[in-house]
Amino acid sequence: MSVYDRLKELNIVLPAATPPVAAFAPIVQTGNVCYVSGHIAKRDGKSWAGQLGVNISTAEGKQAARGIAIDLLGTLHHELGNLDRVQCIVKLFCLVNSGPAFTEQHLVANGASELLQEVFGEAGKHARSAVGVAQLPLGACVEIEIVAQIR
Amino acid sequence: MSVYDRLKELNIVLPAATPPVAAFAPIVQTGNVCYVSGHIAKRDGKSWAGQLGVNISTAEGKQAARGIAIDLLGTLHHELGNLDRVQCIVKLFCLVNSGPAFTEQHLVANGASELLQEVFGEAGKHARSAVGVAQLPLGACVEIEIVAQIR
Amino acid sequence: MSVYDRLKELNIVLPAATPPVAAFAPIVQTGNVCYVSGHIAKRDGKSWAGQLGVNISTAEGKQAARGIAIDLLGTLHHELGNLDRVQCIVKLFCLVNSGPAFTEQHLVANGASELLQEVFGEAGKHARSAVGVAQLPLGACVEIEIVAQIR
Repeated sequence: MSVYDRLKELNIVLPAATPPVAAFAPIVQTGNVCYVSGHIAKRDGKSWAGQLGVNISTAEGKQAARGIAIDLLGTLHHELGNLDRVQCIVKLFCLVNSGPAFTEQHLVANGASELLQEVFGEAGKHARSAVGVAQLPLGACVEIEIVAQIR
Repeated sequence: MSVYDRLKELNIVLPAATPPVAAFAPIVQTGNVCYVSGHIAKRDGKSWAGQLGVNISTAEGKQAARGIAIDLLGTLHHELGNLDRVQCIVKLFCLVNSGPAFTEQHLVANGASELLQEVFGEAGKHARSAVGVAQLPLGACVEIEIVAQIR
Repeated sequence: MSVYDRLKELNIVLPAATPPVAAFAPIVQTGNVCYVSGHIAKRDGKSWAGQLGVNISTAEGKQAARGIAIDLLGTLHHELGNLDRVQCIVKLFCLVNSGPAFTEQHLVANGASELLQEVFGEAGKHARSAVGVAQLPLGACVEIEIVAQIR
């Protein structure tokens, strides 16, 4: 089944292409490995600002991470021309804007990890790290980067 | 010499396999490069919680990092079937749960870096970054991920 | 044009080789992909300590990031023997020592990203993440690691 059929089943609409706000590329491929730049959480087209453990709940953070995963797929779609070229998701790094007592970064990251597995099945299962950072660009509550293998 | 003989010489016992606590894979291999998911510091089978510069000393943090390196080897052993398939350690990323004034993340990371070189010799010498983060999953004092080359 | 001619045009002098201060390698190559260890910001040969949003301005942070990019090129020059072996810059990870309200990590990172594009042109355009961390080794205001493709 095409990734696009699967996205339709899941009622997921990919976002329009958005150019990076700074001096870098959305993706860079070396061999058949593709590095996707860190994407920040967005809501209504703007940075979803806030900090877990302060003014963003774990459930909201997980939702934000799910939204980022969809944006990452949007970037792969626009840059590769065809999402079916993604063979598997290799690695995910989830950076959670965290107040001093927030220790559920792994649950936030699950929002992205689960979405990728819903879309790609076994091929969506990736290595991962989740960490709590002091701040993120534009005050975003979550930022995620991935590495994918391309066919 | 087999890695297992070397581990025996060093009196290192690999831990039992532990399934990830969230929606991801312990390792993912692409080509001959293997990404190992972030492992948090553990003591008595549970998260070794705390913050460097607050309630964990540099020496304790270094010990925690050494323990994580052993756990990472355990994961490679269980997932690859044979640690001798590890050709070299390519990259290590060490995330240290840090209070505002703690600036010895590199000394903490040495606990893992030195262990990998004791086990693999020159092949254990890796590129590395060490940073101080605001928090980590389950309040762990250290988290480490690695990239290894597999033969 | 050789990278060295371009550096001359830009009046950039590569630093002398500096051995890592801890138990790791400056670079490790696997296949034609080269991981360069995290480099911290330096001034007058010592750690450029400070925190963005506290006692380092965005403009200073950007300058620090530019200096790190030059140091990273110095490391590649010394380790590879010839900077012209760098085919492209694949990935950059910029860790910004950030006070609680600082949200311009991407502008700081631009200092490195722009320098790499000045030197390598299109081949210097990379995937990137920029994040705000709680602290860095030796109190440095910025730390950057890169992945490069080698010919």
